Amino acid sequence: MCELLGMSANVPTDINFSLSGLISRGGRTGPHKDGWGITFYEGLGCRTFKDPQPSCLSPVARFVQEYPIKSETVVAHIRQANRGDVTLANTHPFIRELWGRNWTYAHNGQLKGYRSLKTGHYRPIGETDSEKAFCWILHQLATKYPRRPSNWESVFRFIAELANQLRKKGVFNMLLSDGRYLMAFCSTNLYWITRKSPFGKAKLLDQDVEIDFESCTTPKDIVSVIATQPLTGNESWQKIESGDFVLFHLGQRIV
Amino acid sequence: MCELLGMSANVPTDINFSLSGLISRGGRTGPHKDGWGITFYEGLGCRTFKDPQPSCLSPVARFVQEYPIKSETVVAHIRQANRGDVTLANTHPFIRELWGRNWTYAHNGQLKGYRSLKTGHYRPIGETDSEKAFCWILHQLATKYPRRPSNWESVFRFIAELANQLRKKGVFNMLLSDGRYLMAFCSTNLYWITRKSPFGKAKLLDQDVEIDFESCTTPKDIVSVIATQPLTGNESWQKIESGDFVLFHLGQRIV
Repeated sequence: MCELLGMSANVPTDINFSLSGLISRGGRTGPHKDGWGITFYEGLGCRTFKDPQPSCLSPVARFVQEYPIKSETVVAHIRQANRGDVTLANTHPFIRELWGRNWTYAHNGQLKGYRSLKTGHYRPIGETDSEKAFCWILHQLATKYPRRPSNWESVFRFIAELANQLRKKGVFNMLLSDGRYLMAFCSTNLYWITRKSPFGKAKLLDQDVEIDFESCTTPKDIVSVIATQPLTGNESWQKIESGDFVLFHLGQRIV
Repeated sequence: MCELLGMSANVPTDINFSLSGLISRGGRTGPHKDGWGITFYEGLGCRTFKDPQPSCLSPVARFVQEYPIKSETVVAHIRQANRGDVTLANTHPFIRELWGRNWTYAHNGQLKGYRSLKTGHYRPIGETDSEKAFCWILHQLATKYPRRPSNWESVFRFIAELANQLRKKGVFNMLLSDGRYLMAFCSTNLYWITRKSPFGKAKLLDQDVEIDFESCTTPKDIVSVIATQPLTGNESWQKIESGDFVLFHLGQRIV
């Protein structure tokens, strides 16, 4: 299994506090030692840092922590391989273009009977069940909406229907974003929290690190974080029910 | 205009010596201050580091220089914007999946009359003439070869025909790779060199840096480097003729 981390914010925000918690779980406080990756959106563009090394040892992870990139939407993943070797091609997040947007996807879980999924012209590059499922979702979307859709809420409801079909094949927790919206679909474990004014202090569970959000935010900032397991001990994280999804836009939950 | 840098090698090789020369031209010894990017292939997987900041000031560029990633195929680009703002979405290289491979592309030049190019389901994310031309090439390839082709030399000859059509719209120097092959198409300026045993010394033109390749290679290593302008002063770089292309595989020129 793996762990997921996502962020949606209404202003470019750095995710370093949460990322420190995740990176510790990549081989130090957790067993997810088979690579890690993170995608930061800046407008329509995005950049991904990834490494097949354990995140707790990865020089790329150290760099990303020391050089805080401010972003409105982030998707991150640490991997504990089950299907597919430990290679860069099998390292999440996966990214494909659809409707002139970068779609970023990360999966936690394991699927059976996924090889027969039809993926049209979205062909997997690596060997994972995860990437195959992503290509299938994109193919279904491109088939249903040959042109860029305008009702985004119904697009994400359709994606949730697809995710529910995948959930029947095993475990399918997913983060998915086009840079503006961030969707979290829960099969077994996925928690979220929205932080806004008045901000308080938070303390990581995985490291002896505390932050006072009041000192690094403005009263207008709204930031939501999604994670496989709560990253802090002194805040109330919401669990997403199995088979449900939540959708974030500019830091706020909208569905 | 921009500058291009590519590498093809028969063993995972670091490109840091050549990259140092290129990065200097990104705002220090050259005017290409509008962002930069580099893609490293590791097997079928690849990772791209990019930054809309000038490469000579970019923390990401400094990191890539300090952390030598060994790769068999590299495509890099420094940008001097002409079409499209200085944003991450407009920063080369651009990557898309075709036939289950990551295709990486970087362009130096400027095109007119490119807006009417048909791109099928490969839709540009940014605003550049470069990305539009890339999407057109991919659409032409996917149309001509709906299944993954097997005669790669004829695929690259077809791409050269497409590149020649684009060249008629302005200036079109291009690097293109699927991770195994690296193609360099010349419209105005593109030079290459193959280094193999017996290796000698080389001295950068843009920095007071010298390297003795003998000390960091084995006798079996073969490495080709392609650049907009020669990066070293004491070696013989081959100029590609206007309208011609060269194709590299495992470090050697094969076409």
